Amino acid sequence: SVMGFKAYKTISDVPETPDLVIVILPPKIVPQIFQECGEKGVKRIVLISGGFRELTGDRKNTLREEIQKIAEKFGIRFIGPNCLGIYNSWIYPEDETSALNTAIWEKQQRGYFSIASQSGTLASHIFFDPDNLDLGISRSLSLGNEADIDIVDCLEYYKEDDKTKVIGLYIEELKRAKDFLRLAKEITPRKPIIAIYVGGSQAAQRAVKSHTGSLAGNAKIYDAAFKEAGVIKTELVLEFLDLARVLTTEIYPKGNRLGIITNSGGPGVMIANHAEKQGLVVPKLSEELQNQLKEYVIPTASLKNPIDTTFDMNFQNYYINIPKTLMQSGEIDAIMMYGVFGFQDVLKNLLKHERVAKYENFPDQVKKDLPLEKMLVSPLLKLSKKYSIPVFLINPQNYNSPWSKKIRSTGAILFQYWDRPVRCMAKLCDYSQYKKKLSEKIK
Amino acid sequence: SVMGFKAYKTISDVPETPDLVIVILPPKIVPQIFQECGEKGVKRIVLISGGFRELTGDRKNTLREEIQKIAEKFGIRFIGPNCLGIYNSWIYPEDETSALNTAIWEKQQRGYFSIASQSGTLASHIFFDPDNLDLGISRSLSLGNEADIDIVDCLEYYKEDDKTKVIGLYIEELKRAKDFLRLAKEITPRKPIIAIYVGGSQAAQRAVKSHTGSLAGNAKIYDAAFKEAGVIKTELVLEFLDLARVLTTEIYPKGNRLGIITNSGGPGVMIANHAEKQGLVVPKLSEELQNQLKEYVIPTASLKNPIDTTFDMNFQNYYINIPKTLMQSGEIDAIMMYGVFGFQDVLKNLLKHERVAKYENFPDQVKKDLPLEKMLVSPLLKLSKKYSIPVFLINPQNYNSPWSKKIRSTGAILFQYWDRPVRCMAKLCDYSQYKKKLSEKIK
Repeated sequence: SVMGFKAYKTISDVPETPDLVIVILPPKIVPQIFQECGEKGVKRIVLISGGFRELTGDRKNTLREEIQKIAEKFGIRFIGPNCLGIYNSWIYPEDETSALNTAIWEKQQRGYFSIASQSGTLASHIFFDPDNLDLGISRSLSLGNEADIDIVDCLEYYKEDDKTKVIGLYIEELKRAKDFLRLAKEITPRKPIIAIYVGGSQAAQRAVKSHTGSLAGNAKIYDAAFKEAGVIKTELVLEFLDLARVLTTEIYPKGNRLGIITNSGGPGVMIANHAEKQGLVVPKLSEELQNQLKEYVIPTASLKNPIDTTFDMNFQNYYINIPKTLMQSGEIDAIMMYGVFGFQDVLKNLLKHERVAKYENFPDQVKKDLPLEKMLVSPLLKLSKKYSIPVFLINPQNYNSPWSKKIRSTGAILFQYWDRPVRCMAKLCDYSQYKKKLSEKIK
Repeated sequence: SVMGFKAYKTISDVPETPDLVIVILPPKIVPQIFQECGEKGVKRIVLISGGFRELTGDRKNTLREEIQKIAEKFGIRFIGPNCLGIYNSWIYPEDETSALNTAIWEKQQRGYFSIASQSGTLASHIFFDPDNLDLGISRSLSLGNEADIDIVDCLEYYKEDDKTKVIGLYIEELKRAKDFLRLAKEITPRKPIIAIYVGGSQAAQRAVKSHTGSLAGNAKIYDAAFKEAGVIKTELVLEFLDLARVLTTEIYPKGNRLGIITNSGGPGVMIANHAEKQGLVVPKLSEELQNQLKEYVIPTASLKNPIDTTFDMNFQNYYINIPKTLMQSGEIDAIMMYGVFGFQDVLKNLLKHERVAKYENFPDQVKKDLPLEKMLVSPLLKLSKKYSIPVFLINPQNYNSPWSKKIRSTGAILFQYWDRPVRCMAKLCDYSQYKKKLSEKIK
């Protein structure tokens, strides 16, 4: 008995044949364990131990070749070595609390984003902060050195997996590059693939070599191949996560014309400037549309795009009427909204101060029976789906502030600052264009 | 009496001459208020009201010219119109709780970062989340339309201000570009200037026009001029804040050679790859240095740079011995450390589980009388200052998690992911090189 759990000295002592064996033992013993597993009839192994191909010089060994031979002989498929294991949110779909987890520290929200990664960190540690990420995880596979199961095998699995809607990859080396690209081309018209590829720089080459024992390829060749296969490439881990979050909503813009709604000039200018640099178009709205919008703003507002409502406190207009008018116009394909969301809550706090409260004269725009987020943000989300126009909300308050949490609870996509969402929107539009072109070809 | 405070009908009714008048009234009345202020002897006005130069077409007016004339006649200097006001952390330096604040929602930590901004948001709203920013604020000036006091006046003030160590600017237009550049050149050898300049794109032009009524200039010309004057340019608001935080520590690297310490391969690879793309050098460490480092790592570690300690739990080595050896070597100028900081705390939680705890066999590396962060992070900070080698720490846990807060409490620079710190480090090294070159010229 180990740590209170029943234990056996060897695999052969176990009365049943295990469905899955997880190996965390010194590398020297691993071939023997594989042999015993094979003889027992085990077909699946997760090999977490390190100390195989990544060792060089006088520490170099042939253990990898040994276990590969044994696995082949017995028909064993295995992940690793030098990996962090696997995570599966859907082991029993009917039981929401179930998960098969040898990899991620904290239990994750169940969802449709699946990962295959040559870095254990990308497969697990980035989820140390689940509160900060409205991202449901489906599967996560840490591949380590890929002595057997590689990233192409994972793609093949995710391709047909109905619990995978978006695929995230971390790649240091592609051993079967042609197979990878063929598969990626088949997948990306239906399911987006987001990839972090590291290579190209000298330091990265050296780091990759000591990490997975691979030789990273030429970054430019990878870039071109990924582009052709419709793979969304990023170098930033937060963008990787942002894109996963955004793509699982499956709301695809029809073009790249961005409408910007703010209650504040500076952020509008910054969003517009950055958006054009990232390849989005921020079109000037037609006179006709501007006239329609006039109804919903105060005279100091600017309507050309960015729309600057200049701190008007009419939330009904801000959250619903203005975006709805934009969506119906056909003049824009995506919307970003910067504003001091939840200002009303802030006011409520202010009103607690006696000196202010006794002079209260704020119009009560809120019906008493429905929370503000259900009244304002939920209808906005419905419009977003109906018109297939993604909407990103930006709230300068902390992502975990009470009002931010309320917005997030509706399923809306929320950011705290405006740099990340602009870049994320640009990549979403790019991918959407790729999908559209392909489907037009097929017609 | 208004809201419980004593009030007067006009400025002339006030018994004393006010040091400062803050005007939040409809634009039409503003000239009259200025006249009254002038007659009363008021010399300083903050004009928050909008509705001046930013209005166009049939709403265009000459109010701006009217108030300028009155101000000139009476020798009044004023900020605005269409601004959010001012913030001053140091109104009574001896009283830590004091601040003059017409601009920022929540009270800020006192510090040495001063802002002058043509966007009220950049001067105030970005501080809605003070818990998430270890950045002390000195002054913040929201300039609005700059009818009188402009960004050059602010630079002149900050140049000699002993409470300003780092200057942050948000610029849509420079009315006195030559004066600005001359002043910037004088300031940047002593105090860094970080600037967000928005312009160049069509949408930005339009947005700027309706925001401050300015015509944004050619972005390329600005880029070149800023570079010559040593101004650190960024387009990202988080980078603006990161740089402010990092520069106020006044630890300047002597070159751009980055040492990377991790306990995990993937992040090391990603940091190295991104760092080289951002212009940093990630040098392979000498054999001699690698031999010195061997003492502090386990055999599976990689020592070439990135240094990957592969989840060794010896915190004394990770936080102190390895960085110290790097610093003393003269082979690197800056350090980034990615690791699961506070893992020991995590273990403590684990040990609370009875089933695990009774098999406890973790070596206790912690003296009982000193908190871990004082034992580990504080000495690291001292080394960083001594060798003038900046150290950025990266903890994948939430920025406000208990261990992150402990690290931050020591004054260390902490990030959650590795994209932002790499870019920030690259700009810090650039600025440091600029400073160094200038001081070599003078010699």
